[in-house]
Amino acid sequence: MAFHYPNGRKFIPRKSDQSVRPQIKAGFSNRGKTLEDDLNETNSFYLAQGIAVVHKKPTPIQIVDVHYPKRSAAVIKEAYFKQASTTDYNGVYKGHHLDFEAKETQNTTSFPLKNFHEHQIVHMMNVTKQGGIAFVIIRFAVTDEIYLMNYPEIHFFWKRMQDGGRKSITKEEVEAESKRIPLGFQPRIDYIKVIDSILSK
Amino acid sequence: MAFHYPNGRKFIPRKSDQSVRPQIKAGFSNRGKTLEDDLNETNSFYLAQGIAVVHKKPTPIQIVDVHYPKRSAAVIKEAYFKQASTTDYNGVYKGHHLDFEAKETQNTTSFPLKNFHEHQIVHMMNVTKQGGIAFVIIRFAVTDEIYLMNYPEIHFFWKRMQDGGRKSITKEEVEAESKRIPLGFQPRIDYIKVIDSILSK
Repeated sequence: MAFHYPNGRKFIPRKSDQSVRPQIKAGFSNRGKTLEDDLNETNSFYLAQGIAVVHKKPTPIQIVDVHYPKRSAAVIKEAYFKQASTTDYNGVYKGHHLDFEAKETQNTTSFPLKNFHEHQIVHMMNVTKQGGIAFVIIRFAVTDEIYLMNYPEIHFFWKRMQDGGRKSITKEEVEAESKRIPLGFQPRIDYIKVIDSILSK
Repeated sequence: MAFHYPNGRKFIPRKSDQSVRPQIKAGFSNRGKTLEDDLNETNSFYLAQGIAVVHKKPTPIQIVDVHYPKRSAAVIKEAYFKQASTTDYNGVYKGHHLDFEAKETQNTTSFPLKNFHEHQIVHMMNVTKQGGIAFVIIRFAVTDEIYLMNYPEIHFFWKRMQDGGRKSITKEEVEAESKRIPLGFQPRIDYIKVIDSILSK
């Protein structure tokens, strides 16, 4: 429901109002926010509540030129994006090492495996071998469905591709081989619930 | 022992020669290399040998301006260094989450606590509460002695400072309250050995 000022202009709540009256009635559909934003909020919530300590890693940058102006902060004048050698997120939950990558697709019928780099798959395998929990959070953006697929399943589909099979995971396979993450207001993407179900197996 | 060409010029081995004939005879003193270089080499060794999966996090950067030239890579034209909110290194070892900071000092009689930021201490406390192993690797650069101090001990000395006590940990206290890390050729800084002794307690 939209509110209007007497002059007919639509009422747009200020930031401060939004924090007091969160728009829960709008549902949890949450369109427009990126998966990264939602995961950062989720991780802040987990941290504040003492539930888990998970952080996104900074984007790796190759710095070429830095200026040091007098009386002000160093300025990077030339730098390039580097390819990450690991996953984007990691941390610790009840003594367990968590390591994951988050990806979204506009595709509605499958999740393309080109979203991953070979070295990310290798990293997740190494983490799994070392006793950590490596996984992927997949968001189908159009329907805002979010799934958590554990590494052993990703490994299976990656291997299938390497052996000449399809270059994606069908939506049906995602549904069957991963767990859907419940979306909420706080935390937005409660992936720890799914980790609990993996741990209790 | 230095070799000289017939013309009297000193023989300086090329990179490729160095990798074939590592200068073990020079001892492990390893001066000139930074602690970060040595830890990166150590972590590469651990990874290659399947011993542990530990990576240094990229330096956090606030990107302000990026150019996208045609037919070449994006160039960051203006960016600033941000303060890290966590420790520099983390990973997984035999199912245990490891999280640590590495610091060196030119000081010979004590380790100044100003090497840490408050939020790094808080991060290490959060990791410890969550069942991870948080610690600090301290290098006394002049004598090339390297120690591993577990978070509970750091907490004690940090608290002492906050309560008005000294702003450093004396060398004697470091010796008494942490474990010296054996230095070697490969891995250079075998901190996992110390982790093993912490875990076996």
